[in-house]
Amino acid sequence: MRRRVLRISVPAHDGAISHAAAADLVAAEEPLGIRIGGEAVALTMRTPGDDIDLTAGFLVSEGIVTAASDIASIRICTGEQCGHDEHNGDVGNIADVTLHPGLPTPSWSRRNFLTSSACGVCGKASISDLLVTSGNGLLADQVRVPVAILAGLPPALRRAQRVFERTGGLHAAGVFTADGKQLVVREDVGRHNAVDKVVGWALQAGRLPLSGCVLMVSGRASFELVQKAVVSGIPVLAAVSAPSSLAAELAQDAGLTLVGFLRPGSMNVYSHEQRITD
Amino acid sequence: MRRRVLRISVPAHDGAISHAAAADLVAAEEPLGIRIGGEAVALTMRTPGDDIDLTAGFLVSEGIVTAASDIASIRICTGEQCGHDEHNGDVGNIADVTLHPGLPTPSWSRRNFLTSSACGVCGKASISDLLVTSGNGLLADQVRVPVAILAGLPPALRRAQRVFERTGGLHAAGVFTADGKQLVVREDVGRHNAVDKVVGWALQAGRLPLSGCVLMVSGRASFELVQKAVVSGIPVLAAVSAPSSLAAELAQDAGLTLVGFLRPGSMNVYSHEQRITD
Repeated sequence: MRRRVLRISVPAHDGAISHAAAADLVAAEEPLGIRIGGEAVALTMRTPGDDIDLTAGFLVSEGIVTAASDIASIRICTGEQCGHDEHNGDVGNIADVTLHPGLPTPSWSRRNFLTSSACGVCGKASISDLLVTSGNGLLADQVRVPVAILAGLPPALRRAQRVFERTGGLHAAGVFTADGKQLVVREDVGRHNAVDKVVGWALQAGRLPLSGCVLMVSGRASFELVQKAVVSGIPVLAAVSAPSSLAAELAQDAGLTLVGFLRPGSMNVYSHEQRITD
Repeated sequence: MRRRVLRISVPAHDGAISHAAAADLVAAEEPLGIRIGGEAVALTMRTPGDDIDLTAGFLVSEGIVTAASDIASIRICTGEQCGHDEHNGDVGNIADVTLHPGLPTPSWSRRNFLTSSACGVCGKASISDLLVTSGNGLLADQVRVPVAILAGLPPALRRAQRVFERTGGLHAAGVFTADGKQLVVREDVGRHNAVDKVVGWALQAGRLPLSGCVLMVSGRASFELVQKAVVSGIPVLAAVSAPSSLAAELAQDAGLTLVGFLRPGSMNVYSHEQRITD
């Protein structure tokens, strides 16, 4: 999205400060409200686009669905109107979800507060709500990922981002196979949304759990991203930047291989290093 | 917090991949549950430390309190036990808030879901909940900030961070006067928490609204950070990195000067540029 800005240049030594009006590309950020069965359950600030993926990924991350067949429909609506606009496609700031009628009462109804996809723990009212109960058996995932493949993922993620607008304000998340094949890359102002978008893509493509795959993220690895990887059955999470202490602890406990500071010449492995090979 | 990691070095051309066990400093991340009057209302993932500031800032950001006297007490508790530990000080993962008895019913009780300080919009169930009603009159704030002072804030923020552990994983937020004097700097794994910590400090120091001040943040400027600045009466928000579209729009509407990409030689001003002078 283009915006008029005042660009101010400051000379390093002497000289006059200069001002110029310029058009700056800023990352689009808009609210997306998520309704399930007509009930408003969450609101997230996201970059519009891939909203159905984002909504599906939110449902997976929250433990509300585990298979594509759990979802009867997701419609993206504008205000009061739902439906496909023949000129604009599926655009709007409301995602209207209908779950499969046979689905048992989702666990979120037992919580006081709901989580948004921008923030994996927000609204959870007690610490025990944080614990992921993963039936995916990550520990059993015997995949091996060569160091050379891992080292190639950050440039691959950046190449995939280059086809989007370059605003300097977008996080990216991508899923790659253990031999470096790119399955999906999604962008968002929120890194949690970017991950939810790839998870939602995987749900709809019939690819969950994402066994044998690597989730590559552009920023830091927080507890919440580890949680989303574990719920999606992804055995390896690689981040360009630092992990937090709780991210490393949860990764160790859940059987996830956590790689941080993945740079051209080096990387740190925080847990389950047996999956990383020369 | 120190953690054992496997550090893998990848040679640029030929040569063997090397592995070394190393101790890596990782940013501490732990949940903080916030209770008001005994009721669990939010849970945020934060870097322990300045938890009373964080809790006070959360109460301001959420519109629950507007003055220090609105808060009867904030106690940091461990599990079931509240109170000051003579060996460890105020440490724990529960913040127990008692509001002033005369305070009207806070607005949060009228919402379906609560926001966490890690995420200014999470849990808000409708888009109209997002709108800030600011009675602070930011537009009336006539402060002028010279370009040279602004250009000095990112290095000042980094110098203040240097006294903390260098983990590569901490966001920082600082409040400075228009002549560059540092009032407070706080760090956190979550940038929203870092801002809540400085706002909570200001509340307790009797400095709200922070008229005539600049809020400097280490990362991007999202909608939520703009919202926190507006609620705290801060007229200028400066970010090292990019703003989002909604951040720029809200800043324009609310009378806030938004500066992005604040780098040694240049900066972009997205709104209310009249406050930036040569």
